[in-house]
Amino acid sequence: MKTAIRCIDTQHYRLPLTHPMTDASHGMMTHFEVVLVRLATESGLEGCGYTYTIGVGGAAIRALIEVDLKPLLLGKDADRIEQIWDLMWRHTHYVGRGGLVSFAMSAVDIALWDLKGKKEKAPLWKLLGGSSGQARAYAGGIDLQLGPEELVEQTRCNINKGFRAIKIKVGRDKLSEDLGRVRAVRDFIGPDVPLMVDANMRWSAETAIKAARKFRDYDVFWLEEPTIPDDYKGLARIARDGGLPIAAGENLHTVYEFRHTIEDGKIAFPEPDVSNIGGISNWMRVAKLAYAHNLEVTSHGVHEIHLHLLAAIPNASFLEVHSFGLERFMENPPELRDGVMRASNNPGHGVVFDHAALRRYELT
Amino acid sequence: MKTAIRCIDTQHYRLPLTHPMTDASHGMMTHFEVVLVRLATESGLEGCGYTYTIGVGGAAIRALIEVDLKPLLLGKDADRIEQIWDLMWRHTHYVGRGGLVSFAMSAVDIALWDLKGKKEKAPLWKLLGGSSGQARAYAGGIDLQLGPEELVEQTRCNINKGFRAIKIKVGRDKLSEDLGRVRAVRDFIGPDVPLMVDANMRWSAETAIKAARKFRDYDVFWLEEPTIPDDYKGLARIARDGGLPIAAGENLHTVYEFRHTIEDGKIAFPEPDVSNIGGISNWMRVAKLAYAHNLEVTSHGVHEIHLHLLAAIPNASFLEVHSFGLERFMENPPELRDGVMRASNNPGHGVVFDHAALRRYELT
Repeated sequence: MKTAIRCIDTQHYRLPLTHPMTDASHGMMTHFEVVLVRLATESGLEGCGYTYTIGVGGAAIRALIEVDLKPLLLGKDADRIEQIWDLMWRHTHYVGRGGLVSFAMSAVDIALWDLKGKKEKAPLWKLLGGSSGQARAYAGGIDLQLGPEELVEQTRCNINKGFRAIKIKVGRDKLSEDLGRVRAVRDFIGPDVPLMVDANMRWSAETAIKAARKFRDYDVFWLEEPTIPDDYKGLARIARDGGLPIAAGENLHTVYEFRHTIEDGKIAFPEPDVSNIGGISNWMRVAKLAYAHNLEVTSHGVHEIHLHLLAAIPNASFLEVHSFGLERFMENPPELRDGVMRASNNPGHGVVFDHAALRRYELT
Repeated sequence: MKTAIRCIDTQHYRLPLTHPMTDASHGMMTHFEVVLVRLATESGLEGCGYTYTIGVGGAAIRALIEVDLKPLLLGKDADRIEQIWDLMWRHTHYVGRGGLVSFAMSAVDIALWDLKGKKEKAPLWKLLGGSSGQARAYAGGIDLQLGPEELVEQTRCNINKGFRAIKIKVGRDKLSEDLGRVRAVRDFIGPDVPLMVDANMRWSAETAIKAARKFRDYDVFWLEEPTIPDDYKGLARIARDGGLPIAAGENLHTVYEFRHTIEDGKIAFPEPDVSNIGGISNWMRVAKLAYAHNLEVTSHGVHEIHLHLLAAIPNASFLEVHSFGLERFMENPPELRDGVMRASNNPGHGVVFDHAALRRYELT
């Protein structure tokens, strides 16, 4: 069988950030990890997939792929992705059902879709449905450490790069500081540029409601992760009593968690991350679930892949542009023009890594 | 600081089952994995904790402990378990929030409680509250492969061993086969021995309701995992329309998942597994959540530890006795008499492994 999986190669990298980044839950971050999977079929076609962490868990993800997934996958028909996805889900279920296993499955699933794109000679965004072919991008700042003046400077820089939507972190010790930062950015960008804020799960529901009510004065587009993702009823209360649309999803790892967060958590912007929701197969399930709820989908991280996904579906919201600087290791990062990124027409996801540059950060 | 963690040692074993075991979701199992953690403090005291898998994920669990948790834990005060638990939860959150990470945290947390018991010279069951000091045990059969006559033979054997409550697997291709097997066991044990059945997530809600209604003729004590644990509303529908108490929890890895499964899933018997819920700290949270809902808690696997936990709390249901034969590698497995197991008064959990016997199954 030409489409049988012949080999699987896994690499684990620990990459430095361009500068230290801070949010309300994870503190100061200096590195991130990438686990890269390359699959080749009998016919010689190769697919590439990857996941990332914020510095913890990469070794375990790699071990799971190498020890437990690889023997399961070798010889399977790479063209039957749904079947393989289900096989991985069942095989790992006892230690899986989301969590860390979803990161490993994501890398494999993205590689399978990349492979299929190359086989069909189609870019992912067309293979997956072919809607707009582009996405409205926003600059996702990881900038809780910045004061109002520095934030304005960062925003000026982002507007000059072509961004027409901006997100900043909130969740400082004092709400007055958050308000000062939001006010400074809103004053700078004027009324027509969407401004999102992200609290990275810092608050209780009560604190979040209080903050949301204040943020309304600055026409905040969405409030992201105001509290822990596990508290569906808390999220619903924040949405109702705070009066701002809620975004959440970077910490949800199953389609069921999205179902609960949408149905019970009453979020407005589901935000699946293809690198930890279980890959493209599961990301598309979340997108279609959102469609049934009349909701637009946004994304988290790895914008070079999410660009294809948002370009493929009719219910796309903004694309988060933020890959921890992974684009430094790509030969062809996507370009931004007047707030919009267009998906390329190269087959698959089309991302070409500079493997020589990556190699010096490889862990073995 | 005498209670500072000085060293952490992790072993990964792949152990053969005494005989192949089958359930409705995991098919034929021939091996299981144990990941064992030994912690020592500056004062020389040692605690031992462990988790197990049904054959997949052990290498990743070990990698997570060795690479990501060990550097975090060394030097920390072993006496402040809540603080350490929270630290582990936050440190791993991005790849965690349950799932595989909960297995790793469980092993560490059990070791910390064992250590505390040794330091206080108290058995866990007293350290954790000291309720009955014992637990009513049931024989947890993993026996979907057995026909009615073989099941009766297995049950006869279990009654002779001292069991006064029996669980069998259900979820065969034909409901008539399940009914024949349930009927055979009920006829053999008579009306006064509790009989539980476990479908291991095999069914849709509709199939489960149909099965539950039929099982009622045989006075089934609980129906376990009739469908996937993610479908809270489905579970609630099965409980309401099937008319049997539902047990679930072996696949839930956070206290929040238990909250949803109790509040929205309407289960009657929460069934946390200390080896995958995040250890004793999180198991006790589930037990107290259940108490607030006026529910009795049961257990899953590793009965040598769960015996202490059920003996410690006032709202204990039955103890599942089933450790995949891990007791073959213990020098002092707990004993059963007339349906009851008594917790020992040795400090900590008191489990003494035969490390020489384990060593031949160690993976490196």
